[in-house]
Amino acid sequence: MINLKYVNGGITAAKGFTAAGIHAGIRKNSDKKDLALLFSSQPAKVGGVFTQNLYAAAPVAYCKQVVNHGTASALVVNSGYANAVTGEQGTADTLTMASEVAHVLNIAPDQVLVCSTGVIGVKLPMAVIKPGIKTIATKLSPSGGNDAAQAIMTTDTVTKEVAVEITLSDGRVATIGGMAKGSGMIHPNMATLLCFITTDLPISSSALQTAIKYAADRSFNMVTVDGDTSTNDTMLIMANGLIGGTMIEKNSADLQLFTEALTMISINLAKKMAADGEGANHLLEIEVVNAFSREDAARAAKAVASSNLVKTAFFGADANWGRIICAVGYAGITLPENKTDITISSEGGSITVMQDGAGLVFDEILAKKILSVKDIKVFINLKCGAFSATAWGCDLSYEYVRINGDYRT
Amino acid sequence: MINLKYVNGGITAAKGFTAAGIHAGIRKNSDKKDLALLFSSQPAKVGGVFTQNLYAAAPVAYCKQVVNHGTASALVVNSGYANAVTGEQGTADTLTMASEVAHVLNIAPDQVLVCSTGVIGVKLPMAVIKPGIKTIATKLSPSGGNDAAQAIMTTDTVTKEVAVEITLSDGRVATIGGMAKGSGMIHPNMATLLCFITTDLPISSSALQTAIKYAADRSFNMVTVDGDTSTNDTMLIMANGLIGGTMIEKNSADLQLFTEALTMISINLAKKMAADGEGANHLLEIEVVNAFSREDAARAAKAVASSNLVKTAFFGADANWGRIICAVGYAGITLPENKTDITISSEGGSITVMQDGAGLVFDEILAKKILSVKDIKVFINLKCGAFSATAWGCDLSYEYVRINGDYRT
Repeated sequence: MINLKYVNGGITAAKGFTAAGIHAGIRKNSDKKDLALLFSSQPAKVGGVFTQNLYAAAPVAYCKQVVNHGTASALVVNSGYANAVTGEQGTADTLTMASEVAHVLNIAPDQVLVCSTGVIGVKLPMAVIKPGIKTIATKLSPSGGNDAAQAIMTTDTVTKEVAVEITLSDGRVATIGGMAKGSGMIHPNMATLLCFITTDLPISSSALQTAIKYAADRSFNMVTVDGDTSTNDTMLIMANGLIGGTMIEKNSADLQLFTEALTMISINLAKKMAADGEGANHLLEIEVVNAFSREDAARAAKAVASSNLVKTAFFGADANWGRIICAVGYAGITLPENKTDITISSEGGSITVMQDGAGLVFDEILAKKILSVKDIKVFINLKCGAFSATAWGCDLSYEYVRINGDYRT
Repeated sequence: MINLKYVNGGITAAKGFTAAGIHAGIRKNSDKKDLALLFSSQPAKVGGVFTQNLYAAAPVAYCKQVVNHGTASALVVNSGYANAVTGEQGTADTLTMASEVAHVLNIAPDQVLVCSTGVIGVKLPMAVIKPGIKTIATKLSPSGGNDAAQAIMTTDTVTKEVAVEITLSDGRVATIGGMAKGSGMIHPNMATLLCFITTDLPISSSALQTAIKYAADRSFNMVTVDGDTSTNDTMLIMANGLIGGTMIEKNSADLQLFTEALTMISINLAKKMAADGEGANHLLEIEVVNAFSREDAARAAKAVASSNLVKTAFFGADANWGRIICAVGYAGITLPENKTDITISSEGGSITVMQDGAGLVFDEILAKKILSVKDIKVFINLKCGAFSATAWGCDLSYEYVRINGDYRT
């Protein structure tokens, strides 16, 4: 049993973290915040998982180095431009952002994490970012988490924040909070996913890295098909240890507890992303059970969540389960025999559309009612093993085409 | 050098083939032909390549057996219903179609190929298919190729036909003709792809199978991402040998010539499919050169052609090359160093948007002009090897969403 409760706040919910978000002038719209800063009063242990994209952005390469060093005190993020495929100038600009933040916060440059998100291939407007960093440093506040969450948004329509308290085995109470952005999730190859988590737990770097990898694989990597990551995808965690007491190490019960909590809040943020998919009307949850392996279960779930034909069918409230089974069929999994069951459900009801490998005649009016609800679940029982996985996605709408047909201009 | 010329006609251009297409009543719209029949006056050698989908349709499993036997004299195809995920009844219905055709044409049932395309999971309306087969057999004609090409269409807006004459090393002239359907190619996980080729060449079954595999890998498999095949995808070839003379065997110059010609007409049909993608306004040709391996080149080209973000950018006439490079970056290829060049061209002109791994400032007005033309080419030079590949796709439009949001109803 996990002793966890949701609390208010996000990235500044844990002790010792302050944040701010401002409009620095990177984006044209003066109502849109475009620069975020996060600061920990104590140097924090850091962990991170990053995009596998061959053309990874300058800040990604830089953050990997910081994570390898093991500690950081600040994080600066700009939206508007991704600083990806920007050559040597891109690397220089990332280093300048780190050194400017270090200067105003009076810390070492290698204690500053840097992230960027937005259009690829355009150089950062350093002429507005540099004065922006001076301004934002004066606005750091324990209540600045929401401003920061706004500043990292690109085509997101809502901020994504979450915070929980967990009680450790010795009674200590720790807080874990986070924020994320990413709304291009309607197709998995997409817009940048950024997720930042903070906690006041004392935890070793290696334990932190184990936990973040586990959580990412069961949350953000289940809204993003393997390898289909943008040039900038980044998940970072900072643990400043301010609740004091024993350090959480690998192979401890408390690490297991922390990992479960981290996975829960990561799934919470990942679902918020999928639900805020560009042009999305429905959040789709695809659960595959009794697969031959966990990898098979994950592949099948992601193939269904990523299928344009499945996504447009849900947009049209059409219970076209043939497209679901087609996606499972090309996912590249092992399936000794077709005994598959499929059930589609929502608050509107539940219908089994396929049983023991064959389609069922079902009530089309009930199906329409089920598919008219925002949150829809597809449950696929492969009946050939003992492994499960869940993926999240959204429908594919006219609005997605409109947003992406005219993103850069 | 290949001695090849395009000629009129399609599936009945080669000697000895007759065809027909009728409205049998499978589809509601009485203007839409829904049943096609092809007949060879002499038993033909057959070759085929089929979907890898785990839930492959009943007619796919059946056609594999016929291809293994090595000869066939007829092919019957229905549109409207795919006869996929239809259990034992589906298998029985396929066998019934074969035996009904065999009966009216007075041939053995194992000499009849059967294909279906349309909605998955619904049983075939045999009550209209059986009398339809009786009717269509009376309409077989050397000029019936276009009717057959119409009858196999689903959401296709135009028929896809092609025919060529080739001159063999000893001066014999052979004809190769074909027809295809498939327009869900706007996303590769899509609607069924069917392609049927006929020729009057004498050729051995094993040489035929070698040629069809080679041609499919460079044509239809380059508009269909590996493994992302529907339950019914099928390419079949029938060679009746009516021009007489020496049989073409493996490892002959004539087989090489035939393979090249078959590849050319397969690419011709594959491009017609991509151009007729559901809701498509642009045919996109993605050529990747100087990759580390042919597989890498193919993967990169297909990743770009399949990216929803690339496709919506072309819909919006937006030269957002960052999305192109992002797709190359997640394609899972080997790229020792980023020296990539990208050029986008059409009849409207040509612009290099990326050179030696970095973005270039380019003329946005010229870019809009280039991207306003129907056929657009993206040329990607990876500069790390000697292998090339070309993929085809189309843009992603509002119309795609409309068609697929309401396909089944």
